[in-house]
Amino acid sequence: MTAINSLKDLLVDEIKDLYDAENQLIKALPKMAKAAANPILKDGFTTHLAQTKQHAARLERVAEILGTPATGKTCHAMKGLVKEGAEAIDTDAPPAVRDANLIGAAQRVEHYEMAAYGTARAFAEELGEDVIAELLQETLDEEGDTDKRLTALSATINEEAFVASGGSGNSVLSL
Amino acid sequence: MTAINSLKDLLVDEIKDLYDAENQLIKALPKMAKAAANPILKDGFTTHLAQTKQHAARLERVAEILGTPATGKTCHAMKGLVKEGAEAIDTDAPPAVRDANLIGAAQRVEHYEMAAYGTARAFAEELGEDVIAELLQETLDEEGDTDKRLTALSATINEEAFVASGGSGNSVLSL
Repeated sequence: MTAINSLKDLLVDEIKDLYDAENQLIKALPKMAKAAANPILKDGFTTHLAQTKQHAARLERVAEILGTPATGKTCHAMKGLVKEGAEAIDTDAPPAVRDANLIGAAQRVEHYEMAAYGTARAFAEELGEDVIAELLQETLDEEGDTDKRLTALSATINEEAFVASGGSGNSVLSL
Repeated sequence: MTAINSLKDLLVDEIKDLYDAENQLIKALPKMAKAAANPILKDGFTTHLAQTKQHAARLERVAEILGTPATGKTCHAMKGLVKEGAEAIDTDAPPAVRDANLIGAAQRVEHYEMAAYGTARAFAEELGEDVIAELLQETLDEEGDTDKRLTALSATINEEAFVASGGSGNSVLSL
C-alpha cells in the first residue's frame, strides 16, 4: 500500500480512483443502453457515455497539472456498482421493471461520483488548486444534472413498471 | 439469478440489498471510529453506528410488512465501499490526512445509501405502500443529515490535513 504523506497525495489518490471509476463506467454504459427498453432512458445512457468520456479526459488534464499519471488505481466501489448494474441487466424481468432497476443502479453510480468529485474538489480548494477545483466542479455539475434527469424519468418508468406488474403488490389499490 | 416479475419484487430486492449494506456497515463503522484521530469524527462514526443499527431494524420491519425475510442478498457496491474505507484505514498517512480520507470514504457510503433509499422509497410510493415509504424516508433523512455533518467537519479536517502536510502541494501559497 502506497503511503499518503500529504493532502496533495490524497488528491492524487482520489483522481486516480475517479479515473478508474470513469473508465469502468465507459465500458458499462453501452450495456446499460442496450438493456434499456424506454427510448428516453436508452438515449440518456448513450448521452451520458459521451459525457463520461469527457469526464475521463478532464481527469487526465487534472493529473497532468498534478504531474502524475491518471492511471494506477482500482476503484473497488465502482466495481461493485457495475456488478449491481450487470445484475439489473441480467435479471429476468418485464421491460419496464428492468428499466426501473437500471435507473436505481445508475442513480447509485451518480451519487457515488457526486460524493467522490465533491471530496476531490474540496481537497483542490484547500490546496489552492483553483483550476483543478473548477474542472472537478464542471463534472460534478454534470453528474448532478444526470441524477436529476434520472429522478424525473423514474416517475414515468415506475408507473409503467407498476402497470406492467398488473398492478400487483399495491396493498391499497388492490383492496 | 432470481426472476423479478413485478415492481413489488423489485422493492423486495432493494430492501434485501440495503439490509446487507447496513449490516456490512455495522461491521465497518467501529473500525472507522477506531482509525479516526479527530474526536468529533470519532464520535460521529460511533453515533452513526447506533443509527445504522436502527436502520437495519427498520428494514426488518419493512421486510415483515412485505412478507419476506430481509436476508438473502449481497450488496456488492457496499463491499467495494467498505474495501475503500479499509484502504483509508490501512494507508500510512499523517492523522489529519487519514481523517480527510476517512470522511471521503464515509461520504461515498452516505451518498450510495441516499440513492438506494430514494429508489426504494419511490417504489414503495408507487405501490401505495405508505408505511414502508415513511420508514424508508426516516432513514433517508438521517443519512442526509450525516452527510451534511461530514461536509461541515471536512472543512476543519481538510485544513488540518493541509497544515499537517506542511502546506506542501499548494501551488499558489507556496510561491
